[in-house]
Amino acid sequence: MSEVYGVRRNRLRERYAATGTAGALVSRPANVRYLAGGAPRGAVLLLGPAEDVLLCPREPTGDTREGRPDERLRLTVLPTASGDPAVAAADLARTAGGASLAVEEHHLTVSRHRAVRSVAPRMRLADLGLAVEQLRVVKDEEEIACLRIAAEITDQALGELLESILVGRTERHLALELERRLIDHGADGPAFPTSVATGPNSGRRGHHPTDRRVEEGDFLSVCVGADYRGYRCEIGRTFVIGTSPAQWQIELYDLVFAAQRAAREALAPGAACRDVDRAARQILDAAGHGEGLAPLTGHGVGLEIDEDPQLAPAAMGKLDACVPVTVEPGVHLPGRGGVRIDDTLVVRQEADGGPELLTITTKELLAL
Amino acid sequence: MSEVYGVRRNRLRERYAATGTAGALVSRPANVRYLAGGAPRGAVLLLGPAEDVLLCPREPTGDTREGRPDERLRLTVLPTASGDPAVAAADLARTAGGASLAVEEHHLTVSRHRAVRSVAPRMRLADLGLAVEQLRVVKDEEEIACLRIAAEITDQALGELLESILVGRTERHLALELERRLIDHGADGPAFPTSVATGPNSGRRGHHPTDRRVEEGDFLSVCVGADYRGYRCEIGRTFVIGTSPAQWQIELYDLVFAAQRAAREALAPGAACRDVDRAARQILDAAGHGEGLAPLTGHGVGLEIDEDPQLAPAAMGKLDACVPVTVEPGVHLPGRGGVRIDDTLVVRQEADGGPELLTITTKELLAL
Repeated sequence: MSEVYGVRRNRLRERYAATGTAGALVSRPANVRYLAGGAPRGAVLLLGPAEDVLLCPREPTGDTREGRPDERLRLTVLPTASGDPAVAAADLARTAGGASLAVEEHHLTVSRHRAVRSVAPRMRLADLGLAVEQLRVVKDEEEIACLRIAAEITDQALGELLESILVGRTERHLALELERRLIDHGADGPAFPTSVATGPNSGRRGHHPTDRRVEEGDFLSVCVGADYRGYRCEIGRTFVIGTSPAQWQIELYDLVFAAQRAAREALAPGAACRDVDRAARQILDAAGHGEGLAPLTGHGVGLEIDEDPQLAPAAMGKLDACVPVTVEPGVHLPGRGGVRIDDTLVVRQEADGGPELLTITTKELLAL
Repeated sequence: MSEVYGVRRNRLRERYAATGTAGALVSRPANVRYLAGGAPRGAVLLLGPAEDVLLCPREPTGDTREGRPDERLRLTVLPTASGDPAVAAADLARTAGGASLAVEEHHLTVSRHRAVRSVAPRMRLADLGLAVEQLRVVKDEEEIACLRIAAEITDQALGELLESILVGRTERHLALELERRLIDHGADGPAFPTSVATGPNSGRRGHHPTDRRVEEGDFLSVCVGADYRGYRCEIGRTFVIGTSPAQWQIELYDLVFAAQRAAREALAPGAACRDVDRAARQILDAAGHGEGLAPLTGHGVGLEIDEDPQLAPAAMGKLDACVPVTVEPGVHLPGRGGVRIDDTLVVRQEADGGPELLTITTKELLAL
């Protein structure tokens, strides 16, 4: 696995070298982990000019949530209270004779940027921009393997919850129970705060669990995902509590299901992100739910739960093979509740069987 | 309660007005919440020049974790996908005829700062610096009341855990159980990731729970805290598992206890932060544990778990009354484990009874 990181660093090197920059300072944690394999909190990665160095504010703890830094990378643990690792990195680049350094201006604060400049006043500071984020969009098979495991863990945790008694339990307790089960099954943690929404709360994107208890006849919508070795997936399902769903519940569920399927089927290399969004959005719109739809139908996932690409009306760009995305349309009817259905899939060539569904929990409307 | 926020905003206004700045853009979430009472994720607060406006990227959800925005404050919900609220705020300041705007350069990224400048090229951008953080150091009685409740919740959760069977359970499960109990008792969530450390892991500051199981004869150290209405406290205790602690455990515990008590007793208005640190550090140092001590003995708490002041050897400044701080010395012996004892206290005048201990769980060495 280790050489993967060297390959990634070289791909980044080609990008900024082309702009005439001698070195790069990567500070955004997910970007550091992508290029270095792992990093203690606060670590930064200096690429070139002389060598690549991971500067850590403390010893790596071996905590799986930090990942394991690439052994082929020089690792420097800074003395306690020696200040900002980004400044130490800039100083190192200066002593190595670097004339210019590309930094992540979308991550460094104005104050940190000033401190970096002050230790190397003669060094030209350029903007690395989203170069690393762009490299991260298309995943290699090791990354997809981690996402696959994250999805398996998530399906297991959700499946177990569905077998337990739900009526009378609060949204908060169900969310905590799901997170405990994720960890039981080997997750490093939840990929994002688990959302459990009942009754009038159901179907709300990113709903924060409350003390409301599950009641007969409720819609119950759940959005949960595991973090496995840093890779984060997402699944959302909506269920009905009790013996038989009401007519409006069946109709709303079928509608959202149709919209979600349409977007899933639109996933293909070369497909415009906005067209995938439209595939779902126009179905919900035609049914009179155009108002109050979420701004996006889905998004990329990986080392962060919300990455490029975005599946939204104004999104530019096309999908590539090996890009994992969520497809998560939903409708929420104020005061009544609603439905969200959310899967994580990997865009694949038609010849390879089309989109690979990672989150395989059934999407039938289950009455629990 | 509401007028409290207006008072805080006016105190800030006096500060930057003195520097000849017409308005201020507050973007750091804890600072926005302090001045506005609450804010949806991503919200920014514009103070002046014409009026104060809270710019939110979405409708407030009423989620207790966000707080409730001050009704006396103009609240603007930006249209979906209208971009960075900080840029919208700068545009508003410009149209209001503001000649200058102070921004939080320690929070705004270089890219956001550039975007802010680009919408108002003629407006002078100054640095607000840590003005709001400085206002936040001394707490009012409402803030201390929230911290008191957070501490009560934390003591309850910890007390319940101690009554349960511990041997054979993993660090991860104990941590999750504690967090569930925090929420059962009314916390908005954990104040920080709960740390549970057993055996050789015990006594390590910020240890991330592993799958190691509690064994007879272990030290068990726990660090946990509740978030109540945004206010975060912290308690750390170390216990022995089994009937009777070993001699080395008793001696190490007594030493850390003595150090922690010395620092607690040094807390007083006007006391130098470094002297409080030294009170604990010199006791551990004299016993031969000077190496490998944490860089700080304690820190302020409030809307963030790690605020000013810092109790550290190089810390400048003195304590004031009504400043809540942690006192958390510890010793970790590699391979054997260690002890940490951590309380949250409020600095008070001698005449008011001296330091107010918020976390009242016993500090005897309990054998569980």
